[in-house]
Amino acid sequence: MRIDVVTIFPEYLDPLRQALLGRAIERGLLSVEVHDLRRWTHDVHKAVDDSPYGGGPGMVMKPQVWGEALDEVCAGGTPRLVVPTPAGRPFTQAMAREYAREDWLVFACGRYEGIDQRVLDDAARRMPVDEVSIGDYVLVGGEVAVMTIVEAVARLLPGVLGNPASAEQDSFSDGLLEGPSYTRPEVWRDLAVPDVLRSGNHGAIARWRRDQALARTYRRRPDLLAALPDEAFDKHDRAQLARVRDPDFDPGKSV
Amino acid sequence: MRIDVVTIFPEYLDPLRQALLGRAIERGLLSVEVHDLRRWTHDVHKAVDDSPYGGGPGMVMKPQVWGEALDEVCAGGTPRLVVPTPAGRPFTQAMAREYAREDWLVFACGRYEGIDQRVLDDAARRMPVDEVSIGDYVLVGGEVAVMTIVEAVARLLPGVLGNPASAEQDSFSDGLLEGPSYTRPEVWRDLAVPDVLRSGNHGAIARWRRDQALARTYRRRPDLLAALPDEAFDKHDRAQLARVRDPDFDPGKSV
Repeated sequence: MRIDVVTIFPEYLDPLRQALLGRAIERGLLSVEVHDLRRWTHDVHKAVDDSPYGGGPGMVMKPQVWGEALDEVCAGGTPRLVVPTPAGRPFTQAMAREYAREDWLVFACGRYEGIDQRVLDDAARRMPVDEVSIGDYVLVGGEVAVMTIVEAVARLLPGVLGNPASAEQDSFSDGLLEGPSYTRPEVWRDLAVPDVLRSGNHGAIARWRRDQALARTYRRRPDLLAALPDEAFDKHDRAQLARVRDPDFDPGKSV
Repeated sequence: MRIDVVTIFPEYLDPLRQALLGRAIERGLLSVEVHDLRRWTHDVHKAVDDSPYGGGPGMVMKPQVWGEALDEVCAGGTPRLVVPTPAGRPFTQAMAREYAREDWLVFACGRYEGIDQRVLDDAARRMPVDEVSIGDYVLVGGEVAVMTIVEAVARLLPGVLGNPASAEQDSFSDGLLEGPSYTRPEVWRDLAVPDVLRSGNHGAIARWRRDQALARTYRRRPDLLAALPDEAFDKHDRAQLARVRDPDFDPGKSV
């Protein structure tokens, strides 16, 4: 997969060359090019922003500089242009899986009050353009959002994760949050690993994990639980959901 | 505000020292200390993970090393411990505002299949512990999520943003997405700035912006619109919502 990022803070994206993604880049599974937007300015101050039409606080990123940058970065093909903004459609694991099937993604990092809307309207005449939001909060600029999206997408590319099963069994693959995990020692400080996890009984372990996932999702993300169809639950699931909905249910610390 | 981050990839957090946040740190509005978790390992391999009890793919981060790290980093006070995980409660702008009122936040970056749950259960006996999710997708580790949360929180600290009005007028402050922004020139390529924004009529501009925000929120985030109480809308809002709900409504490219 080819990834290009256009930003006024190219060094901000340096962490993408570290750890797991760094190794994926070295192994040729992924290429990441970061471009300094100011390369496409023509004035001595290298200005990228100007006052908004209609007034109001903040500055808007200028269309000419973005237009020229995208013309050059997107030349010779049809990438998908991804623009992180709190006003975008929500980025989800399903979208991460879609993006992982693309050959080429170009990211445009806005700063200040965002990019002149005509830049995106113009680009949309030549390529798919997604305005996406990584969550319901406001950041200083698009850079951290791009790192988030690139990480979520890159770990799904074939060969990037050592164990592909890890990519499959994570939270969201069955619509539920993952429950708690434990490793050695059996007792740490005064806290013991739940007995069932040391039982060797694979059926009981799977059931316990499913029950923990149901309880945790009920308490932390009732919206996810409500979004699942009835067929997603078997009779054991329904019994566990009845238990966790009981106001006297003690979820334990972990849930 | 004091921020400590514990991670096995300290350099990953370097971007926090750049741009707006870097200036906030230089001006003493914020302190950020990044700690290498491996400092608290005692074996020659500096191992931080081990196999999960109960089997399954991936590795779980060991309780001893995390326990010692948090004992030392959190000594001498009661910070709020924030642990990013896809199984956490959703991080929102409201939570960013709450965190901006805290004196001290400690972030624990999980990797692999997460941190042994007893680390959080133990910490919760001494300090508030939040498992939070920045969105419904899976990352490689907590580092990018921490950068996201720190950016969202730090920009709300007094003095960090040049113009405090920018922090107030963003998306989510009124429960709606922000509409499009424009700056000079009036016509770029063949695309013109909407006339109303050049009218100087402040009432008409405010109304147009509100209409754009309503149309965009309806199309991109019907969940946000549905969450607002009836009193959030005046009669003009209701007329605009009737228009955008009409299947023949042409939203224009920007919405």
